[in-house]
Amino acid sequence: MERLNGFSHAEGGVTAPLGFMAAGVAAGLKKGGKRDVALVAAADTVPAAAVFTTNAVAAAPVEVSRAHIADGRARAVVINAGNANACTGAQGVTDARAMATVTAEALLAAPEDIIVSSTGVIGVPLPLPVVVAGIGEAAAALDARAGDDAASAIMTTDTFAKQTALAFDADGMRYTVGGMAKGSGMIKPNMATMLAVVTTDAPLTSDACAAALAEATKRTFNRVTVDSDTSTNDMALLMASGAAGGAAIDMHSPHYEAAAAAIEEVCAQLARMIARDGEGATKLVTVTVTGASTEDDAEKVAFSIADSPLVKTALFGNDANWGRVAMAVGKSGAAVDQTRLAIRFAGIEVCKDGTAVGFDEDEAFAALDTDEVEISVDLGLGEGEATVLTCDLSYEYVRINGEYRS
Amino acid sequence: MERLNGFSHAEGGVTAPLGFMAAGVAAGLKKGGKRDVALVAAADTVPAAAVFTTNAVAAAPVEVSRAHIADGRARAVVINAGNANACTGAQGVTDARAMATVTAEALLAAPEDIIVSSTGVIGVPLPLPVVVAGIGEAAAALDARAGDDAASAIMTTDTFAKQTALAFDADGMRYTVGGMAKGSGMIKPNMATMLAVVTTDAPLTSDACAAALAEATKRTFNRVTVDSDTSTNDMALLMASGAAGGAAIDMHSPHYEAAAAAIEEVCAQLARMIARDGEGATKLVTVTVTGASTEDDAEKVAFSIADSPLVKTALFGNDANWGRVAMAVGKSGAAVDQTRLAIRFAGIEVCKDGTAVGFDEDEAFAALDTDEVEISVDLGLGEGEATVLTCDLSYEYVRINGEYRS
Repeated sequence: MERLNGFSHAEGGVTAPLGFMAAGVAAGLKKGGKRDVALVAAADTVPAAAVFTTNAVAAAPVEVSRAHIADGRARAVVINAGNANACTGAQGVTDARAMATVTAEALLAAPEDIIVSSTGVIGVPLPLPVVVAGIGEAAAALDARAGDDAASAIMTTDTFAKQTALAFDADGMRYTVGGMAKGSGMIKPNMATMLAVVTTDAPLTSDACAAALAEATKRTFNRVTVDSDTSTNDMALLMASGAAGGAAIDMHSPHYEAAAAAIEEVCAQLARMIARDGEGATKLVTVTVTGASTEDDAEKVAFSIADSPLVKTALFGNDANWGRVAMAVGKSGAAVDQTRLAIRFAGIEVCKDGTAVGFDEDEAFAALDTDEVEISVDLGLGEGEATVLTCDLSYEYVRINGEYRS
Repeated sequence: MERLNGFSHAEGGVTAPLGFMAAGVAAGLKKGGKRDVALVAAADTVPAAAVFTTNAVAAAPVEVSRAHIADGRARAVVINAGNANACTGAQGVTDARAMATVTAEALLAAPEDIIVSSTGVIGVPLPLPVVVAGIGEAAAALDARAGDDAASAIMTTDTFAKQTALAFDADGMRYTVGGMAKGSGMIKPNMATMLAVVTTDAPLTSDACAAALAEATKRTFNRVTVDSDTSTNDMALLMASGAAGGAAIDMHSPHYEAAAAAIEEVCAQLARMIARDGEGATKLVTVTVTGASTEDDAEKVAFSIADSPLVKTALFGNDANWGRVAMAVGKSGAAVDQTRLAIRFAGIEVCKDGTAVGFDEDEAFAALDTDEVEISVDLGLGEGEATVLTCDLSYEYVRINGEYRS
């Protein structure tokens, strides 16, 4: 069995863990008969946690879901693609509540146990009757092997469905964690919206769900940037069915760390898929910063590099243009001593003590002419480290986002 | 005579005011025999002030010039294009000092009165002998009508030379302010470097120079963004020859405000030229934010919009994609109540109370299909206002910055 950072690989996504069913159906929100309504449901209401966008212009489903997850429990999450239900005012909130109510009725659950999410175009009223019909169809199609359908139903401009699963052992039991996500996309060209649903059959408590998801998100989803733009609709949800049995795992359990590590690994794999599939991306870029005074400084520097259009266009051109990286380090706001700065592109040292190191430009070009590259920066000041994932900035990004909505 | 915001237009740039000579010569740093060394000199050491990049990885000439301007006086500024003398270590500082020394010898001045600036590729040692020869040639070519030559010598990927001048009346005298600037550019594809030299024949004191330049910079150059990347070499310099006569103008003079306003207007005009000529830009974009709780919040929101790749690509496509503007407002960190948010594209109301306003898409497309557009955002919360200038994000930006250095 393939080993993934010490975990065992498992097939599938959100339905890989015991105790979850899923569905993905085509309600008609997307063109061409593609799946656009997803449903992931536990057999009963289970411990759960969610994190949401920090954007002050949050979408209606974010507002509704924040309230519904407040008690640390959820039965199901319903997601539509094709319309973000954002900037839709009071009607948007009414529509998001209606999605929860209709889903609850189909599952014989309470509306407050249904988490709601939408992704797609902003500022257009949700076509509620279409969504409601899709929810009914999805509820009828729920299946313990349909994680694939759900993962494809939440795609927008994603070029591939994003899901993963792994197993870990704790307390003499084998537990599974599965997840699905969508990355940057649009129906009509619109903003990136990140969305992830993670499931596990480990018997985590609500507090343990919240702690594990918060920590995993901080180190994974919150360290991905495609274009520095924060969506109105971002959400990551964790649900723990406990269906694999065993004693409850709370934050003080000796098995909490194993479960949290497995959840973080699933989130990390989904985050890598999101960065790799950034709009127009030709390569996945890992920016690793070491030697910062603090972890916070390391993160500032890593994001400053990963968000820089000049760095991202250079990477598109396979150009080890370290001067732009030095510039991004300097503008980051972190403590920097340029005489201690070292920079590597794809393992090749290009800058040391803040000045040029002779390197073979042809070799560097060849090393960057691949679909996965690393920029490493050592600030030489302390122990702070951070890694941020991003992608390059290509003509295709401009085409996808510059073409008039149609 | 043309009136510009209450000022009288004057011909030329840095040599429009009395008491300044300039030169721009081709030393061989740029290909094709283009001018690449500029010199702007007063007849004697005069009151002056400068502001520099806040990038922690500052270039060698920035370090040297900071020291040389500390006494509030300068005789001349020497500028080379084609090499930024950044990330060049101790040798870079020695080279920057040598530029000052050679210029001082040619002008029979003290090295400490010479301001030094470089713009171009990063991390490559300055070819000092080439620069020294250029300085000698420039000193010999100094002329009171050669502001044009200096303005063209500091260009990198700028598509036009940027200079302006205007006259104002104070204390019964007519004074002139002139300026030149360069915007985003490269020789080998590299980072944007902003550079401006402003001259006046008004008898400003050193303190008045510093105050007027600081205030003008805050409202003009510091409110321009092409791609959110802060150069290692940015500098704006103001020199006041006093050659037009009259009593000294210090910060307490009744004529200070008139002089400061004229200086700000020259800076504003140069800032507009920089935004219009951003790399790959097809249009100048003015982002105006009103109704913010504070001016600081207004500036945050304006920059969040102006730096957003999704907003900038939409503008390239003439798309009144207000959802992306709402997203950028929300992620800015400023106080926002989405139910009060109003957005206009080119004067057309597209969002009110945070939700869609019906508008004619064809009309909006036509209104945006021009070389100068405005996005206006009203947060509806307070009196804070700010305006930021930027440009769109086009295929050409990716081409300029994504082509391998050659």
